[in-house]
Amino acid sequence: MSDPFNPRSSRRTFLASAAGGAAAFYCTIGNTKVTLANPGDIKKADAIAAAVPRPPILGASTRSNVSLRATKRGTAFDPVDKLSFPRPTPAPGGKYVEYWIRARTVKWNIVPTKRDDWHGTPIPGKSTFKAAVYQEMTPGFAEPKGPANMPGPLLHAEVGDVLVVHFQNDLGDLNQAVTFHPHGVKYTPDYDGVYLGDYTRIGGFIAPGESFTYRFECKPDSVGVWPYHDHGPNHTVNTMRGLFGALVVREKGASAPDVENLVVFHSLIPPITGLARAFSCVNGRAFAGNTPTFRSKVGQDVAFYITGMDNDFHDFHMHGHRWKTPAGDFTDNPAVGPNEVAIVRFVEDNPGRWLYHCHVFAHQDGGMAGWYLVDP
Amino acid sequence: MSDPFNPRSSRRTFLASAAGGAAAFYCTIGNTKVTLANPGDIKKADAIAAAVPRPPILGASTRSNVSLRATKRGTAFDPVDKLSFPRPTPAPGGKYVEYWIRARTVKWNIVPTKRDDWHGTPIPGKSTFKAAVYQEMTPGFAEPKGPANMPGPLLHAEVGDVLVVHFQNDLGDLNQAVTFHPHGVKYTPDYDGVYLGDYTRIGGFIAPGESFTYRFECKPDSVGVWPYHDHGPNHTVNTMRGLFGALVVREKGASAPDVENLVVFHSLIPPITGLARAFSCVNGRAFAGNTPTFRSKVGQDVAFYITGMDNDFHDFHMHGHRWKTPAGDFTDNPAVGPNEVAIVRFVEDNPGRWLYHCHVFAHQDGGMAGWYLVDP
Amino acid sequence: MSDPFNPRSSRRTFLASAAGGAAAFYCTIGNTKVTLANPGDIKKADAIAAAVPRPPILGASTRSNVSLRATKRGTAFDPVDKLSFPRPTPAPGGKYVEYWIRARTVKWNIVPTKRDDWHGTPIPGKSTFKAAVYQEMTPGFAEPKGPANMPGPLLHAEVGDVLVVHFQNDLGDLNQAVTFHPHGVKYTPDYDGVYLGDYTRIGGFIAPGESFTYRFECKPDSVGVWPYHDHGPNHTVNTMRGLFGALVVREKGASAPDVENLVVFHSLIPPITGLARAFSCVNGRAFAGNTPTFRSKVGQDVAFYITGMDNDFHDFHMHGHRWKTPAGDFTDNPAVGPNEVAIVRFVEDNPGRWLYHCHVFAHQDGGMAGWYLVDP
Repeated sequence: MSDPFNPRSSRRTFLASAAGGAAAFYCTIGNTKVTLANPGDIKKADAIAAAVPRPPILGASTRSNVSLRATKRGTAFDPVDKLSFPRPTPAPGGKYVEYWIRARTVKWNIVPTKRDDWHGTPIPGKSTFKAAVYQEMTPGFAEPKGPANMPGPLLHAEVGDVLVVHFQNDLGDLNQAVTFHPHGVKYTPDYDGVYLGDYTRIGGFIAPGESFTYRFECKPDSVGVWPYHDHGPNHTVNTMRGLFGALVVREKGASAPDVENLVVFHSLIPPITGLARAFSCVNGRAFAGNTPTFRSKVGQDVAFYITGMDNDFHDFHMHGHRWKTPAGDFTDNPAVGPNEVAIVRFVEDNPGRWLYHCHVFAHQDGGMAGWYLVDP
Repeated sequence: MSDPFNPRSSRRTFLASAAGGAAAFYCTIGNTKVTLANPGDIKKADAIAAAVPRPPILGASTRSNVSLRATKRGTAFDPVDKLSFPRPTPAPGGKYVEYWIRARTVKWNIVPTKRDDWHGTPIPGKSTFKAAVYQEMTPGFAEPKGPANMPGPLLHAEVGDVLVVHFQNDLGDLNQAVTFHPHGVKYTPDYDGVYLGDYTRIGGFIAPGESFTYRFECKPDSVGVWPYHDHGPNHTVNTMRGLFGALVVREKGASAPDVENLVVFHSLIPPITGLARAFSCVNGRAFAGNTPTFRSKVGQDVAFYITGMDNDFHDFHMHGHRWKTPAGDFTDNPAVGPNEVAIVRFVEDNPGRWLYHCHVFAHQDGGMAGWYLVDP
Repeated sequence: MSDPFNPRSSRRTFLASAAGGAAAFYCTIGNTKVTLANPGDIKKADAIAAAVPRPPILGASTRSNVSLRATKRGTAFDPVDKLSFPRPTPAPGGKYVEYWIRARTVKWNIVPTKRDDWHGTPIPGKSTFKAAVYQEMTPGFAEPKGPANMPGPLLHAEVGDVLVVHFQNDLGDLNQAVTFHPHGVKYTPDYDGVYLGDYTRIGGFIAPGESFTYRFECKPDSVGVWPYHDHGPNHTVNTMRGLFGALVVREKGASAPDVENLVVFHSLIPPITGLARAFSCVNGRAFAGNTPTFRSKVGQDVAFYITGMDNDFHDFHMHGHRWKTPAGDFTDNPAVGPNEVAIVRFVEDNPGRWLYHCHVFAHQDGGMAGWYLVDP
């Protein structure tokens, strides 16, 4: 938070920091630590990220060549670093479920309507920045399946399946390695999708223009909804500028809800966007009418999947509704930490216009609210 | 947080921001966005709130006149905005449970004893401000049922009942609309008690001096304890200055605990109070001996209902006791986000003087602690 | 957080505050309130703590002399303050489980390798400070059972047992009273281990050089994992500088996991350490290769016990693994507030090098991450 009592603290400073999420942060990119505090600093982070060299160790086929001696940078290998891993195959009755996903940049408007439809208030000022998102493509990356969106596509698989994500780094002039790191599914270190410096496995550094195919097992304890996000060398910056989404794993043959909505609470802050103020967002947008307007009909089986993708903890409040928690009691306001997930599911019985919002007052007021319309 | 290393950062600044809760925030009142950072700013917020016009759409009887064309302010109506709704009636075997509640102001002392009874420490300085609270009245708003208190009365109903809240805005010179918005119970949009600009329904704007009767259904999934608070045009300010409370819905015929205590963790901060420092509070009071001193007797069935009413997350630690969570494991320190509720219930077996406190160290030290005395 | 847009805000300020945890706080020590904001302030806190007088009321044997009149400091005694309590004995089939633990100081290096092994990044600068820790001793405090460590020893008992902690204050030149306060077990007020000013019982003020024996009952609802920490007159400071650990209570005869790991997320901040920057820590260390490198083998029954010991909320993410929550759903990223505990338990099935980290991005980047190595 800024210091509002300090007379030297400008209003612009306040707006930059008030809407949730640290307005400054500290991150490690390759072997450099960098402070991101000013709007211009993202250029610095991107330049450092573009210079991160491809780690020398690239995966299963080359693991037998790994020296277990320490590197010049002080890395001390362990026998586990020499292991190689088989490709997963579906469990009996399971199948391969394939997605083609590319990381790309997109000119993204956080407040396209320039107003808050809840209060009828104008939201003046610049709200467009260069985001990075995961976009679903047709097989072979032939063409987009739909517009670039934040979050990325909601992926679906069942227990026993192998979820196959063909991933392409198409970030263009950002010119840096990214990855696809999922929660909840089982993967070998090759498919972890995480940059680990000298310990990096093949899926942890997908260089600009390259593709890689990840293979994830859906196990009985993968049932649930799980975020995915970048975990490459510049992961904090890239996740915060939009490289996130979620996947759903159901029991084999379990019925899907009629309506399925993903709600990602996060902030878009000046060091990431270069904009003058911070926004408290749902799915990359701030203020009702910009954030998703969800819709369903009385009698439908409705699901909302709630997660957080910044440094803050959030509460999801949906007016007019309550539902059972996994523990068996009832809530209308579950909390989620970063990358935690709360599953909301109910049979719709309450028509009308409803407000949903994060119940952290400062987030709600900073734009983390929207509409849910229920037809009779 | 303030910046304590900045030599220009004064001690007063630090005290203002250290005790939990953002010392500054940003809110939307009617169609104006306002920054509340300085003690004087609440006057500005109240002036804006007093000028918010009554929304043109006032409820069931007039819904058929709603134009579905956009308003001058850009509001685009939806067919759901034209819906009208029946008044709820009790389920078979249920009943109407009626309360009369008015919103009023009160001169509120956060630290009436001027000391912290835990450490025996003086707490000097001004600690009184103009709060707003919900006060329970006798039928017909004839007279107060007890002193004005923060939080408001703990309401009770059972599954199948219709909870009827006769609400009166008696805020006097604050001269602004407020509402009564509950969690957990079922309501139609008319009884949501939320200001939604042009979409506002009849219960979402109770003007100064006016009354309104809310009707809420207690459904099987309403079982639990739920906050209520203002959700009018100036809701963040009014909730933070005291317009909050809680309600309990039990299964029909379920036994009530012998002792039932509501614990609301929240902060009272300079932009709301006009005071020089922030206080970390339980039920509007800070520091042991001012916060509630709860009391019970060995053998009693004791309940504490914990919630948060600010921008922070809290932990409730009760010394000398543990209890079962809804998931079936045990805790003595559950976390709650804003408007989340943790229910604590145990059979008392441990006599003596016990400390309870928020386990966020900074909150505990800022006043969020108190006594629980157990007689043998 | 610091204000990164304020040109007067120095880089040092930012580093001091960016890595999680309030960089300044306010605490009560005996009957003095003190602000800890600058590295030098801990000396002030320690001087105040050293001057806190022994409270006049020291325990069971002297309770009958307690006057129920108010003291000069305004303390108003209650009949419960006059109660005396029996020493607990084991339940049928239970036993006494004895530990000898001393509080001592230790020169503690937060980043002994001077690098982040995840990214291969140097971490320059001073990282050693004077910590205080709980150290396990052989019977009679004869000699240390192992090196001084942060956190203290993981204690074990079963339902029905009395956990006996022989505690010695050996803090030397810190020259102040400390205590041992556990969560989860049952204790009388004598064994609460909490300083309460004039209400303090015998276990709540263990003066420099003194010893005290605490006796805690392990009840059926004590099953779980629970933190312990200092709760003496200077508890916030002493807990934050390392006086914390955890205990495990199992059902009688319940099988222990093959591998048991305690993960304490906390921050070490300039007002506590006197260092120029804050560190986001696991068990007193920051950055992979310094934080614990956990290890197990495929087929082992593995447990991680997660808790937080600062002002922040945290998320524990373990790559490559998922597990069942107490509610019966699955997670790989549970949240914990200060002194809340999440129990992670799974049968190991995934060999390789795995990253674990707090999923609050700013904490992960500030050092709250480490390795988990699984042998095939």
